[in-house]
Amino acid sequence: MKLRAKYLGIETGGRPFVTLSRDDAYDMGVMGGDRLKVNAKGASTTAIINVSVKSIPKGVLGMSDEVWTKLKLSQGAAIEVEPAGTPDSLSAVREKLRGRKLSYEDMRRIVDDVVQGNLSETEVAAFVTALHAQGGPSMDEVYSLSLSMVETGKQLGLKRKPIVDKHSVGGVPGDKTTLLTVPVIASLGLTIPKTSSRAITSAAGTADRAETLMPVDISIEEMKRVVEKTNGCMVWGGAISLAPADDVFIRAEFPLSIDPLLLPSIMSKKKAVGAQYLVVDIPTGKGTKMKSSADSDHLGKEFMELGKRMGIHTQCVVTYGDQPVGYAVGAGLEAREALSAICNKSNIPDLIDKVSHVAGTLLEMTGYKNGAKAAIEAIKSGKAEKKLREIIYQQGGDSEVQPDDIEIGKYGYEVHSDRDGVVLTIDNASLVSIARAAGSPKDKQAGLILAKKLGDRVKKGDLLYTVYSDKTHKLAAAQKIADENGVFNVADKREMMIHTLKEAPVRDRKHPFILER
Amino acid sequence: MKLRAKYLGIETGGRPFVTLSRDDAYDMGVMGGDRLKVNAKGASTTAIINVSVKSIPKGVLGMSDEVWTKLKLSQGAAIEVEPAGTPDSLSAVREKLRGRKLSYEDMRRIVDDVVQGNLSETEVAAFVTALHAQGGPSMDEVYSLSLSMVETGKQLGLKRKPIVDKHSVGGVPGDKTTLLTVPVIASLGLTIPKTSSRAITSAAGTADRAETLMPVDISIEEMKRVVEKTNGCMVWGGAISLAPADDVFIRAEFPLSIDPLLLPSIMSKKKAVGAQYLVVDIPTGKGTKMKSSADSDHLGKEFMELGKRMGIHTQCVVTYGDQPVGYAVGAGLEAREALSAICNKSNIPDLIDKVSHVAGTLLEMTGYKNGAKAAIEAIKSGKAEKKLREIIYQQGGDSEVQPDDIEIGKYGYEVHSDRDGVVLTIDNASLVSIARAAGSPKDKQAGLILAKKLGDRVKKGDLLYTVYSDKTHKLAAAQKIADENGVFNVADKREMMIHTLKEAPVRDRKHPFILER
Repeated sequence: MKLRAKYLGIETGGRPFVTLSRDDAYDMGVMGGDRLKVNAKGASTTAIINVSVKSIPKGVLGMSDEVWTKLKLSQGAAIEVEPAGTPDSLSAVREKLRGRKLSYEDMRRIVDDVVQGNLSETEVAAFVTALHAQGGPSMDEVYSLSLSMVETGKQLGLKRKPIVDKHSVGGVPGDKTTLLTVPVIASLGLTIPKTSSRAITSAAGTADRAETLMPVDISIEEMKRVVEKTNGCMVWGGAISLAPADDVFIRAEFPLSIDPLLLPSIMSKKKAVGAQYLVVDIPTGKGTKMKSSADSDHLGKEFMELGKRMGIHTQCVVTYGDQPVGYAVGAGLEAREALSAICNKSNIPDLIDKVSHVAGTLLEMTGYKNGAKAAIEAIKSGKAEKKLREIIYQQGGDSEVQPDDIEIGKYGYEVHSDRDGVVLTIDNASLVSIARAAGSPKDKQAGLILAKKLGDRVKKGDLLYTVYSDKTHKLAAAQKIADENGVFNVADKREMMIHTLKEAPVRDRKHPFILER
Repeated sequence: MKLRAKYLGIETGGRPFVTLSRDDAYDMGVMGGDRLKVNAKGASTTAIINVSVKSIPKGVLGMSDEVWTKLKLSQGAAIEVEPAGTPDSLSAVREKLRGRKLSYEDMRRIVDDVVQGNLSETEVAAFVTALHAQGGPSMDEVYSLSLSMVETGKQLGLKRKPIVDKHSVGGVPGDKTTLLTVPVIASLGLTIPKTSSRAITSAAGTADRAETLMPVDISIEEMKRVVEKTNGCMVWGGAISLAPADDVFIRAEFPLSIDPLLLPSIMSKKKAVGAQYLVVDIPTGKGTKMKSSADSDHLGKEFMELGKRMGIHTQCVVTYGDQPVGYAVGAGLEAREALSAICNKSNIPDLIDKVSHVAGTLLEMTGYKNGAKAAIEAIKSGKAEKKLREIIYQQGGDSEVQPDDIEIGKYGYEVHSDRDGVVLTIDNASLVSIARAAGSPKDKQAGLILAKKLGDRVKKGDLLYTVYSDKTHKLAAAQKIADENGVFNVADKREMMIHTLKEAPVRDRKHPFILER
């Protein structure tokens, strides 16, 4: 069938679609969700069909930006279309829906089509949901998916050894461990090409924190250059296509609050940067996704098993996650605290302890006798600070930056204790909501600083934490959340009552505990 | 945040969306798939967010036709937007993903949001997939879904008794039973407000067949008027919103070849037309979805159980589906055959037998002693023909139409037997492919007519079937399929070999066996 091309001015983030009139769809015997092959002068592509009753007249084919760009069309250009069969990978998706285990070939087909946008939103969602509903992919499937995701992405291609990496599955506010671990490791001669994510639901991601100090949205070529100069980097992983299928899977998993592709997602990106040694941090406890260390051990074993198959020596550290790491929560405030700690200008014992274990584990995996000691020594000696400044410089930031240069929001709201006692619990999720309402991670000055932590004795009237923002309306929104939620539980002894149920409880937070990847 | 409105000229069939720049999305802390509340002068709505890197500049909000129309905007109009929370129904979807049984309130919330377009394609697909992967909804859930789908749709509101209905889950080519059953029933004084579907993957749906005789795309008010005049009607159900959620669910289920919402889909529409008595035809056998009568009995029991809960007396007829009903396959050719049979101008024994059982069951449910006999008598006496002509007249068709007025494609391709023997099998799926390639259901003259049926003795050279089309290129395409597929298996005895496997077999047809609803 011959149609005229129309540019719709919409992109879908890699999933090309076309829209045609109901009459033309009926004529061709196609319906919404089917595929159409579009042939233009010298080029051809396949796209998923959207059927229009009203906005597209008979004889016209509306095109998403992806299709338009690929075919290099001009408005009204003549094109020829025909129904395209369903991709092979859809058969594999349907097999998965039937509960079958999929082979490497099946998974590779699916990942190929996901990357090329050949599977519709419905089909990707069904694949992800089926994996989840069937208790998660098997280890063979996890391995097949991981390999496929590496093979369909870019690779860093460093010619160095050993290359190490670290990852945290997240869940703890204020976790600025990476900002110290990368320079510690790099200062000791190991190569650590670190990519990080931005916050989705948390108060700040490592990329948000690092961005306070230096540009993080840089190309893979730039990243490689920085690592070759300094042994390390801190780069936003979102734009460098290490495992492009992952972005598509995450768009399906995230609204559903499920993550059956967690392991392939993380490990494919580690493989793509060439990691040979990896430590995975699994924060555990109330307020994180991993409620018990048994759960964390189980997840850790899966990481190690997959690492073995992929040729990445992997160890895990299961860490306390019941309260923020350090005192600061919020992108800029955390960077400030991390910088202060690495410059030996303040003492943040839990942060330094965590860095010593994460970095120490990596160091011992590559031959050090006492890794934790070596890590602490790298900080104390100033080597780590020097290395951080090198990385900042190479990534285009101000290598002379001092903690006080990082501004804190000019409006503050203090929360005080209404009784004497000991801090028994701190509600991580409420702290995150408060920091986000205050403006983090976008407003780098926004967030909060704790005055007390778990186990601290407090008197009535003592400061518990201060919320900061540069905008009064954001501070007011954060204040409202702080006032409505008992963030700190201060008591003399464990009280038995958690809460009473008087009406049907709200069952779900917006995006409950998504592991980071 | 204040933005300017831009019309995108794309509709999504009821799922409103907006597209905004990555910068604005980051500023508001929203991502693709989240919801945005859009406030314009005097109106407000919520839409799902698509994030654009390229085609939408900062400060602009692109809108799908649904949003644009609802807000009555003009190009460049000032609008105010803010992040909207996730709908309550998404919590229920997530509960389902965790394997929980959902309450009526949960299901109602989901169906409400499905109808209003508040759940994204990903979320609807996940819901449908989870229902399927967990072994289908429980009967309580089926009932909750069915009620919710009735309550969110239109109802016919006939003030008559008794109202009866029939449904076939499909799968047999050439099944023109409804074209005779409706006039038979209506001629005997019962009310049968029949809605039907068009073909999706079959050679013709009942709406396609009926359309050869009369307009079927009529409003619900028109439908009601026709039924009040004649006791019956034959209307396309696709545009009258009896259970609008169903259209959305089908768009997710269809590409996945799953149908966990089959029962609610069918039964909600029966309830919406006020049916008190229902017979469900379940064609069974090779070439249909129901491979054994045990499977069919199981499905039938579910229909009856659900019918009981919904106040619809339901019985099922399990029928042979190994070969086409009658001789004609293709929208117009089937209408011609049905008209010829109801006019007593030709003898199609299996068609009349099936009608006598389907109509007869309904008649006996409402008090007749021998329903099959009454049904046959209605045909023989000419009462059914008279009633059909009344319905045709009231729906705006030519009530004087004769079988020969319905044209058959002027080009034909004959297929002859290459050996002596008995017809042992006829491949329904190949016949459907051939009829569709010839142009059915769109080209009403296209299709095929069998010369032999199962059990018939044939001699080498005997005509088996003839393919008809009005277009030589379509006939050629159909001929190719006919030549490549052994549609008829003619042999002297059951031969043991089915086929050999020499390479990995193609595992999936395009849309394998979707039950009709």
